[in-house]
Amino acid sequence: MRATYMYGPGDVRVIDVADPVIVDQTDAVVRIVRSCICGSDLHPYHSMSPSSQGSPMGHECVGVVEEVGREVRTVEKGDLVITPFAWSDGTCEFCREGLQTSCRHGGFWGGGDVGGLQAEAVRVPLADGTLVAVPVEETSPLIPSLLTLSDVYGTGHHAAVKARVTAGTTVTVIGDGAVGLMAVLSARRLGAERIVLMGRHKQRTDLGREFGATDIVAERGAEGIAAVRELTGGDGSHVVIEAVGHMPAYEQAVGVVRPGGVISRVGVPQYSKAPVGFGTLFGPNITLTGGPAPARAYIDTLLPGVLDGSVDPGKVFDREIGLDEVPEGYRAMDDREALKVLVRP
Amino acid sequence: MRATYMYGPGDVRVIDVADPVIVDQTDAVVRIVRSCICGSDLHPYHSMSPSSQGSPMGHECVGVVEEVGREVRTVEKGDLVITPFAWSDGTCEFCREGLQTSCRHGGFWGGGDVGGLQAEAVRVPLADGTLVAVPVEETSPLIPSLLTLSDVYGTGHHAAVKARVTAGTTVTVIGDGAVGLMAVLSARRLGAERIVLMGRHKQRTDLGREFGATDIVAERGAEGIAAVRELTGGDGSHVVIEAVGHMPAYEQAVGVVRPGGVISRVGVPQYSKAPVGFGTLFGPNITLTGGPAPARAYIDTLLPGVLDGSVDPGKVFDREIGLDEVPEGYRAMDDREALKVLVRP
Repeated sequence: MRATYMYGPGDVRVIDVADPVIVDQTDAVVRIVRSCICGSDLHPYHSMSPSSQGSPMGHECVGVVEEVGREVRTVEKGDLVITPFAWSDGTCEFCREGLQTSCRHGGFWGGGDVGGLQAEAVRVPLADGTLVAVPVEETSPLIPSLLTLSDVYGTGHHAAVKARVTAGTTVTVIGDGAVGLMAVLSARRLGAERIVLMGRHKQRTDLGREFGATDIVAERGAEGIAAVRELTGGDGSHVVIEAVGHMPAYEQAVGVVRPGGVISRVGVPQYSKAPVGFGTLFGPNITLTGGPAPARAYIDTLLPGVLDGSVDPGKVFDREIGLDEVPEGYRAMDDREALKVLVRP
Repeated sequence: MRATYMYGPGDVRVIDVADPVIVDQTDAVVRIVRSCICGSDLHPYHSMSPSSQGSPMGHECVGVVEEVGREVRTVEKGDLVITPFAWSDGTCEFCREGLQTSCRHGGFWGGGDVGGLQAEAVRVPLADGTLVAVPVEETSPLIPSLLTLSDVYGTGHHAAVKARVTAGTTVTVIGDGAVGLMAVLSARRLGAERIVLMGRHKQRTDLGREFGATDIVAERGAEGIAAVRELTGGDGSHVVIEAVGHMPAYEQAVGVVRPGGVISRVGVPQYSKAPVGFGTLFGPNITLTGGPAPARAYIDTLLPGVLDGSVDPGKVFDREIGLDEVPEGYRAMDDREALKVLVRP
């Protein structure tokens, strides 16, 4: 089959690899119906250490179960399934607490002997804990929205949940990528009335307005901070969702958060240390939270709204390509020509 | 009157200064009955930039109102009062939300033209918002416990509240100073059953046991982390309260916190940057919280237990000195001869 590998900065290739097969009796093999490219894939696209082996890419998909191991109980051949961006056993304490990204026996796509999802098919370990079957045909127009439950919608929701957004919370979202836009949608869904979106790509911020943003701030740095502070009566935002991962976005978050407020990070941090001292987080009692979303945990909560059409998170996809065009898809996302690229194997 | 000033590392002097007087009609003048030395006073004692003017010291006291401005309504001459370690108007949004340390018009003792509390008396700005009158005589044996409501008990409580400690939470407290011990007491009060205290001064950890610690870990660094992990089934502690403020304590906190857990800092950080990246906070979804405690906010909650004797936080005081002995009190606390020093002006 064909699968996507990255070999170094800017070097993405679609190559032939062996077809996936059942290895453990808790596995399933899933044929991928739609995958996509994630903003977080652009981090290694910029900074990956060159590797002759390459790394399998892709961690979001909707697919159809082709085969299951003898011990698999909750899905069967022919089921349409959502695969969250981490696989997990569903039974350990962390899974039961809803933190599947820390599952005792789980892992991430493309790690060890598990493939990536920008591919034609994949072996899914711990299929019972990982996969969620949905009563939808693979030709359904709901597929793009279901695919967002694999990562970006769950990630936006995680940001808002970790920050304890409720009615009355003023939320600022830093970043107008797909995760930032999903954070807007999620904050709105949890009742936030004032949602400031910091971003400067009009097409994206327009979609942000559609998802619930009440104010757009295109400026960055000191100007952007001043603009958000002015919008929030001088004090800043109760909650700031940082959906980028670079240090200037962190600094922006510190600049616009209100004393006693929360910075919730879902952009994968591209730094190891950050300011947390008296003058930044400690003095004004700022809480720093967030991390990789346990997307699996949120599917039960978020799926009904997708199925009944009350939300349409699939609107973040603005381009669809075939699997062999994935390298071009990375380029288009990196150049901000495309917001989020759907991949049809 | 006599008052304490610090001029540089190790250089504490008790000097003659002008008696405080009413400046604004919202002021009170308070004669200090008992003050004390705080672990956080030892930070400048180590690292203050030398100054010929000096800094007024002390931010905790119980006193008696001597005089009030015309606009003061809630306290009157002769009242015994607790002064929280920040003064605040009690009316701004931050005060109404219980974040008096971020009061729009408030400040900290020893800043601007407001004196420190290791002194004979002090001018209290915004007396209505700041002072809490308690129906106790100044000769009462409850005075030391009431004095802890000025800072350390409120600070320990803040650490536990910000970390949302409830029954069933496993809590590790890093630091066996007065704030660490108050965090133990507070975690116990909020229902925590398993409380690991990391500290190596037996007299202090014995008091920690009395306040509710179930386990003591004397080791530090990798050994200390391994010991806490062993005590917590390998996964670490839901909540870690960092009551020191130095980087090794932060690193210890990161080492012992459970995935999905909370690090709550109440030791004033002596660093500006810290590890917060994928490998420390982000990957395991750790929340970092804490800051200066709004001690004023917690007095209503904590006072009844002090008055009825169900808690005895005043046990953290193990030495009492006169005001002129304050320099010796700093030395004794810095040398770990004394846990917390009560000052009798």
